[in-house]
Order: sequence, then C-alpha cells, then structure tokens
Amino acid sequence: MCQIVPLPLGLWSGWYDMPMKSWRRKVHDLLEPGEQASPWEQLFDVLILLVILVSVSVVVLQSMPELAVYDPLFSKIEAFAVYFFSVEYLARLWTAPEIETYGGGWRGRLRYAFSLMALVDLAAILPFYLAAFADSNTVVFRLLRVFRLVRVLKFGRYHSSIGILGRVLLSRREELVVSVGLVLALVVITSTLMYAVEHDAQPKVFSSIPASMWWGVVTLTTVGYGDVYPVTAQGKVVAGISVLLGVGLFALPAGILAGGFSEELARSKREEGGKCCPHCGKSLSEE
Amino acid sequence: MCQIVPLPLGLWSGWYDMPMKSWRRKVHDLLEPGEQASPWEQLFDVLILLVILVSVSVVVLQSMPELAVYDPLFSKIEAFAVYFFSVEYLARLWTAPEIETYGGGWRGRLRYAFSLMALVDLAAILPFYLAAFADSNTVVFRLLRVFRLVRVLKFGRYHSSIGILGRVLLSRREELVVSVGLVLALVVITSTLMYAVEHDAQPKVFSSIPASMWWGVVTLTTVGYGDVYPVTAQGKVVAGISVLLGVGLFALPAGILAGGFSEELARSKREEGGKCCPHCGKSLSEE
Amino acid sequence: MCQIVPLPLGLWSGWYDMPMKSWRRKVHDLLEPGEQASPWEQLFDVLILLVILVSVSVVVLQSMPELAVYDPLFSKIEAFAVYFFSVEYLARLWTAPEIETYGGGWRGRLRYAFSLMALVDLAAILPFYLAAFADSNTVVFRLLRVFRLVRVLKFGRYHSSIGILGRVLLSRREELVVSVGLVLALVVITSTLMYAVEHDAQPKVFSSIPASMWWGVVTLTTVGYGDVYPVTAQGKVVAGISVLLGVGLFALPAGILAGGFSEELARSKREEGGKCCPHCGKSLSEE
Amino acid sequence: MCQIVPLPLGLWSGWYDMPMKSWRRKVHDLLEPGEQASPWEQLFDVLILLVILVSVSVVVLQSMPELAVYDPLFSKIEAFAVYFFSVEYLARLWTAPEIETYGGGWRGRLRYAFSLMALVDLAAILPFYLAAFADSNTVVFRLLRVFRLVRVLKFGRYHSSIGILGRVLLSRREELVVSVGLVLALVVITSTLMYAVEHDAQPKVFSSIPASMWWGVVTLTTVGYGDVYPVTAQGKVVAGISVLLGVGLFALPAGILAGGFSEELARSKREEGGKCCPHCGKSLSEE
Repeated sequence: MCQIVPLPLGLWSGWYDMPMKSWRRKVHDLLEPGEQASPWEQLFDVLILLVILVSVSVVVLQSMPELAVYDPLFSKIEAFAVYFFSVEYLARLWTAPEIETYGGGWRGRLRYAFSLMALVDLAAILPFYLAAFADSNTVVFRLLRVFRLVRVLKFGRYHSSIGILGRVLLSRREELVVSVGLVLALVVITSTLMYAVEHDAQPKVFSSIPASMWWGVVTLTTVGYGDVYPVTAQGKVVAGISVLLGVGLFALPAGILAGGFSEELARSKREEGGKCCPHCGKSLSEE
Repeated sequence: MCQIVPLPLGLWSGWYDMPMKSWRRKVHDLLEPGEQASPWEQLFDVLILLVILVSVSVVVLQSMPELAVYDPLFSKIEAFAVYFFSVEYLARLWTAPEIETYGGGWRGRLRYAFSLMALVDLAAILPFYLAAFADSNTVVFRLLRVFRLVRVLKFGRYHSSIGILGRVLLSRREELVVSVGLVLALVVITSTLMYAVEHDAQPKVFSSIPASMWWGVVTLTTVGYGDVYPVTAQGKVVAGISVLLGVGLFALPAGILAGGFSEELARSKREEGGKCCPHCGKSLSEE
Repeated sequence: MCQIVPLPLGLWSGWYDMPMKSWRRKVHDLLEPGEQASPWEQLFDVLILLVILVSVSVVVLQSMPELAVYDPLFSKIEAFAVYFFSVEYLARLWTAPEIETYGGGWRGRLRYAFSLMALVDLAAILPFYLAAFADSNTVVFRLLRVFRLVRVLKFGRYHSSIGILGRVLLSRREELVVSVGLVLALVVITSTLMYAVEHDAQPKVFSSIPASMWWGVVTLTTVGYGDVYPVTAQGKVVAGISVLLGVGLFALPAGILAGGFSEELARSKREEGGKCCPHCGKSLSEE
Repeated sequence: MCQIVPLPLGLWSGWYDMPMKSWRRKVHDLLEPGEQASPWEQLFDVLILLVILVSVSVVVLQSMPELAVYDPLFSKIEAFAVYFFSVEYLARLWTAPEIETYGGGWRGRLRYAFSLMALVDLAAILPFYLAAFADSNTVVFRLLRVFRLVRVLKFGRYHSSIGILGRVLLSRREELVVSVGLVLALVVITSTLMYAVEHDAQPKVFSSIPASMWWGVVTLTTVGYGDVYPVTAQGKVVAGISVLLGVGLFALPAGILAGGFSEELARSKREEGGKCCPHCGKSLSEE
C-alpha cells in the first residue's frame, strides 16, 4: 500500500470502523490510542501526558528549599497523580488480555505485569506507597522521593522516541559496540599513561588509574571542568595528543547514532505514508 | 525548466519587464527587491543593511563605559537610524496592499501590521520613543536600550537565513521534537541522580534538582565551566557515564539540524537554476 | 552471492567441514576461530577475552592505594594471567606455520614472531618476567606495572575494531593527512599569535610558543580547562576568532573518520551476507 | 579519459616526455613539480619541505627561554633557511614567465611578484632582513621574529590542503555565509541578554556587551574556560537555553565545511583517475 494517507490524525474515523466494542476494548483503546484514535481517545492521551508532566515538575520543584512553603500543595498534586496513575495501572492490568501478544485471561495479565512498561508504571507509583512507611527526612525517604522521577520514562509509552532509540541501538549495535570499545580503550590507555607521567607531580589528583580515568573522561569528551589537568610538560604533551585523537574517536559513536536515528525516522515515515515508484506505481518501501 | 540562468543578479532587466508601475509599486519594489531587482533597488537594499549594521554596532558599543565619551555621537547615529527605520516602517505599511497575501486597502495594512516581520520592525523603533518617557539610568531605561538589539532580526528580512532555518525547523520538526525530548529527559534524569548522590557532599552546589540541572546542561553540552562538578567517587561515576551517553545524544539534534539545513539549501538551489543532464538535456531536479 | 546466511554463528558446522585435522591445526583453530567456529572454539575465545578483561582490571585496580589490602589476591590473578598468556603465546608460535602468509617451519615461526600482534602478545607478558629483576617501589617497577596495560591491545585480535580502524585510516589517509595538517597549522599559527599578544600580560602562562600551544590544543578542541586563557582585549579577540574557526576545522578529521568508519562497516556487512533485490533476486551489492 | 592510471607518481616518465627543456624550464620544473615529476624534482621538493619544517621549528623553539643556550645554533639555521628561501624566491621570479597565466618577460615577473604565493614567499624572508635594522629585545624585533612563522603558509604551495580548503570555501560560500550569520546573530543576541540579566550581579565580568560576547563565544563553542559564567538563577536559565540552542547552530558551519571538504576530495580523486559508467564505458566524472 503506498497511497498518501492524510497525516492529520483522522479524528472521526475511529467510531465508524468498529461499531461493536466491549467496555474492556473501549477502555483499552482509551489507554492505548492507535493510528485511528477518536477525538476523545486523543484528549485522554493529552490528559495523561499532562499529569505526567505536572507530576515530574512537582518532584523537581519539591527538591527546592525555597519552595518549601508550597509543600502542602505539592503533596496534594502528588497524591492526585499517584491515585490517577494507580487507576491507570489497574485499568491497564484489566485490559491487558486485549493485547494479542500477551494472551487472554489472568495468564495474560500476569505476563503483562512483568513487561518493561508495566514495571515502569508500577515503579512510578510504588515510592509513594512505600514512603508512607518511611520516616520523613531520612535518606530512604529522600531516595524514594527522587525515585518518583522514573515517571519521565512513562513518556516513552506516549511518544515514539524511546521506541525509535531502542530500534536504532539494535540495528547499529555492531558499529556502536566497536566504536564504544575503541572509545573505552582510548580512555583506559590515555588515563594509564597520564597516571604514569603525572603521578609524581600531582600525587593527590592522579592518585590511581581510576582517578586518572575521571580526567580521561572529562577531557576526551571535551567537557574540561578544570579540576584535573596536567601540569608537567610531558603530561601536557600526552594530554594534547590524547585529546587530538580523542576528538576524532569520540565523534564515532555520536555520528553512528545520529546516522542511525535519522535513517530509522525516515524508514518509519516511509512505512506510514508509503512511497510509490513514479514509473510503475509500485511501493518503494523496504519490507 | 533547467536552463542555467546567469547568477549575477540581472541588474538591468527590472526596467524593461514592467514599464508601467505606480509610485506605490515602485516604493514597494525598492523595499522588497525580488529576483530581478534593478541596480537602484539593490543599492537601496545595501543601504538599509548598512543602517541596520551600524545601528546594532552602536547598541553594542554604547554599553562600553570606556566609550562613554562618544555618547553624543552614538545618540545622533541612533536618532538617524530610528528616523530612517520609522520612514521605512510607514512606507511598508503604505505599500502593504501590493503584497497579494494580505489583500488590498486598510484591511490589508492592518493584517500586515500584525505579521511577524512588521512586529519586528515596530519593536526595532519603539524602544527609542518609549525611552523619551523613561528617566535615564533606571533599569527600564537600560532594558529599553538593550532591547533595541532586536534590530538584528531585521537582517532576517534581507537575508534568506531565517527563512531557511524556519523551513528546516518545520520539515524536521518530528525528528527534532523526538531528539530534543531525549536530550531533556537525559538532563532531568542525570541531574536528579547527581542531586541524589552529591547533595550530602556538596549541599550548597547541588542544593536542589533545578540547581543540579545547571550542572547537567553545562556538562552534557560539554561546556564544563568548572563551577560545578562532582567530588565523590559515586558522583564521578554517574557523571562519567552520563557525559559518555550525553555526547552521543546531544549530537542528535545538531546532526538532524545540519542535515536538514544542507538539504534545504540544496533544494532551494535546485529550484532556482535547475540542473540538466549533460547528454539528453532533460531536467535532473526531483519533482 | 546474495543468500541471506543466518547470522547466529553456525555453532555445529565446524565439526563436519574438516573431518581430518592435525593436532596443530586443532590448536590453531582454537586460538583463531574463523567464521565457522565450533562451540568449543567459541567458548575458548570467550575464555581468553575474560582473562584479558580480568587482567586489565587488575592492573587498573592495583594502582589504587585503597585496595592495597587485596594485593596478594591481585598478584595471584596476575600470575595466573601471565602463565595463561605465556602458554597462549607459545601455542601461537607453535601453530604459526598453519597461517599461510607466514610460510611453514621455523622460518614461518620467526616471521610470525615479528608480526605486530605477536609483539603485542609478547609485550603483554614481558613486564611480569622483567619485574622479577627490578626492585619494587622504583620508577622502573611502576612503569613495568603500568606497561602491562598493553594487554588492552590484545582485544584487537579478538575483535574486528582495530582492524576496521586500521583499514579506515588507510583508505582515508589522504583526507586525514590534509585535514590534520590544516588542524596542526591552525594550532601553530593561533598559538604564535596568542604568544605575541598575551606574552606581556601573562609572561608566566604564555612564556613561549610551545607553552602557548598547550592553550591552543586545549582551546581549539573545546576542552577549555580554564588554567590558561587570554586576559587582554586583543587576546580575547584573537582567541574568539581562532576558536570560531577552530570548531569548523577540528570537525574535519572527526567527520572524515566517522564517514569512513560507517562506510567500512557497511562494506564488510555487504561482503558477508550480500543483499538481494526482493523482486528479481539479483545481488544488489556494489562490485 | 577514464582509465585508471597507477597512483605511484610515475617517477621516470618526466625525462622522456620533454626531451628538449631550456634551463629556465628545468629550474621551474624543479621548483614546481607537476603530476609527472622526475625523481630529482621530487627529491628537491622534499628538501624544500624539510627546510620549511626545520625553519618553523626553530621559530617555535627560539621562543623558549630554556633553550636560550642554543640561540647561536638557531641563528645559524635561521640564516641558512633565509638564504635558501631567498635563492628560491629569486629563482621563482626568474622562472615566472614559464607559467602561462602570468605572461612572459618582466611584465609576467611583476605580475607574479604580486600573486598571493609570491607575497607569502617574500613575507617569509623579509623579517630576517628587517630585523638587522631593529634593536634586539624591542617589541618590533620580537614581532618580526614571530612573523617568520608565516612560513607555515609556504606548506600550502607544496600541499594541496590550502587549495582544497579554498575551493570548499568558494563552493559552499552561500551556506557558510548563512550559517555563520546565524551563529554570529546568536552570539550577539545571547551576549546582550546575558549583559542585561547579569550586569547587576557581576558588574566587572559582564561590564559591557562586548565583554559579554567573550562569554558568548567561549560558551557557545563549548570551550567553557570557567573565567566567566552566570551566577544568578535567571542568568543560568538564559545561558542554559542559549547553549542548548548554540550546540545545534554551531554544528552547522562545521558540518557544511566537513561535507564540502569530503565532496571536494572525492571530486579531485575522480578527476585524477576518472570513473567509467559500467554500461556504456563513458566517463562519469563531472565536467
């Protein structure tokens, strides 16, 4: 099929195509709007995204001592978000049998419960319930608070970004392993060389090879904080050559990722709309 | 059409093609020289660009205390530039009906007045007139002075750069949204992790998640000022892994933008001149 | 040939293809598993990789004063790794005549012994034996310890990365020489200019042109530690223009390397499997 | 012509092709070896490159106070290099009429004398002769010394790099002007914004818009020395957004340059060897 379907999301078509839907099916479609989502399903989708965004913002803002005065408000928003996510989680469990890959009945629900996205959903609400048992102002309590940020990953469900990234990592895994291997080898070799030549001049900073590696990563990624740098002439020569080499090598994984990313996006675009050969009219999309 | 039209801008052709132009049309052509601009129209174009350049330079130089002695000169140049831009603005308003998209008469003028470029033109002269009402040496006065720099955007009218950038952003909006989303997610997650592991060691620097985000942006873009960096071993491990990942992810939007930019420029070149097959003489441009 | 051979590494085929192998051949295949490695050969391959990894980790960890208490354990692992590598080295020498390029008999062994990979293998074990003659805590002893890290290069034998990098460097040597030449010329010219304009203001930091070059490399690679930077207005202007130019020029070798790398990987993939046209079944690989 | 001529530089062919060469022609060929250089011409070429390299190294090393003891040696090498370059310069002037583009006789010589490369050659020897009139240890004397480094540009004559860079800058001038314009606009706008929001908090560092621009260039190129950075919350927000945008925009000129560079190199390679259509056998190289 290579007809150019209009991109605007076909707001009305959802209601005519499937006239007889069970309630479970309707709830499932509300939670997982497909290509032909109805306007209500799209609206609900935006609502969930909004709750995630607000909830993540609250986690971030709650960490600011200046905003401690708003803490009661934050707590209320947090509670609302967690109840919302809890209902969403249970609804997803209930409607899991609608997804073919998991199978029907309780077995399907159990299988779904251990899928990656279901675990992320659970992780997004669990800290709230666990925090009820922890004393406030303890390390555990603070870590639980921070851990709520796992909700950022819930965006992945509503946006294709994480899926695309995953497919890029998969399709380019060979190139990435090779180039990341080269990068890591350069970090290890460079850091060891710097440890050898700078240890005597700066015994505290280049105290060991792992400590040197902090210099290596910060330098070869060109971050260059300035907390660690060579002071001896031979150290500067080694660092200079390393960083000139490093700029070239560190561009490899980034370049491979960028290339794979744009290729993957072009491919998924092609699959959506299809592209016809201008001569024979046959589809040009790769199968 | 794939004839190779000579690139030099066809200085003389403008006068023959349209022998009967109204005054309004002539003024409009002076302000908006098209492909077949007459030499006078081109000269006037260069003049406006020059006034913008000088006027922007004055805003920059006027901020230097060392050059306070030249302030009277700067004020005179500024006044001339503003009067020049004011006449230009009024002339553009008057000739707006010549542009088909806005329609004729006062309705067309009103519609034009609310277009982006007209608002930029207005913003370029307004601070001068408003400053007459403000006391000098107040914050408002200084902000008004700085705001005059909006004139830099007037270049966009005389140069295709902003138009091209806009089209690139539009055509690649999907890829850019996905990759910028990934970048922001990495910043938020990384900064929160760093807040969790470094807050106890550096309670002032990593005082909250937003404060941590300053570290996140400065590090993941590889700027690395050195005002904020981890000091604990676990913080350095988290930062090292983050920045190795970040170098790859942050190259995504830049790569997509660069790819779209050169593609867009190639496309606009193709449309201008066209390219013929050297053997059969048929157009090679994609359509 | 463009049949899609299954990627999983053909675990069983090795035993049927060559029913009559000499012991020397068998040992050689164990050390150098080809495309059609048997499961035992693959297992042994993983084992060697593991020993290299553990041995490199020990070199890194042994440099940490905090882990001095584990030194006896590290020494035992180190001794085991060296004996393992020694046996491997001797076995490789013994089986060298199986590799056609070196020729048979002792002449082949001698030629093999002076090949790059054999020298790396020797360098990986030599420091251990030499250290027996050196007093501990001397500089020589420490350097010998660090030199053991040359084992990282042994990975190159078991992974295609170094081979690919080598071929990229070879195929793009012309472009790389030109672009690296431009980069070095920019470093020299920029550093000399900075020496000329900043020497009077910072006689200690910009003490000579080579000292200036440390600034040049750190700045033009955008590392920017912050230990050396211009303070005078003219120095900042020179540095600003240099770094704006430098960002463009320094991306050249990285871009060429990345381009060559992905091209080389695509080429080696094509050669392995080939790609058929889905319609006519003919090979689509370039030849 | 699209036969694949062997790349090795055809050492012997030079003597047979032109059996009757005048002395002026012979000297000219020695100085400007073409595609079919004789071995002696190539040897002389390497000799000149060596003298340039040594002479540039002497300029660099002479700036080091530690090596002041070798100054007499450096002076002798310098004198030899200058005499060598002087003879080369005069020989080039004498043989200039052999180059068709300049025309014959003294008019050709005069025209050559004002060509870019001839001026570079003159600039490489002039400081030495001028320094004889200047007192040592004066600023003029030191600047003359540093100026000798212009000899680096003489490499451009013996290597295609500068020529290629020039052609890339020419062919991509439109894209480069647009993207560099965007980069400069971002620097100006960002720096002005930072001046507005940080001037009150750091009146010394962000003292004026040009001073802010130092921050802008250092930050947007991701050098990030750490001598200038925002301290206020609003300044950090502006800087964070600027640098996220800047990473994308600053990659544009670099990407365009890298793309044009590799394209130009591919084109010049094609022209040398030629590439035939596999079907009709006609040349595919662009004319």
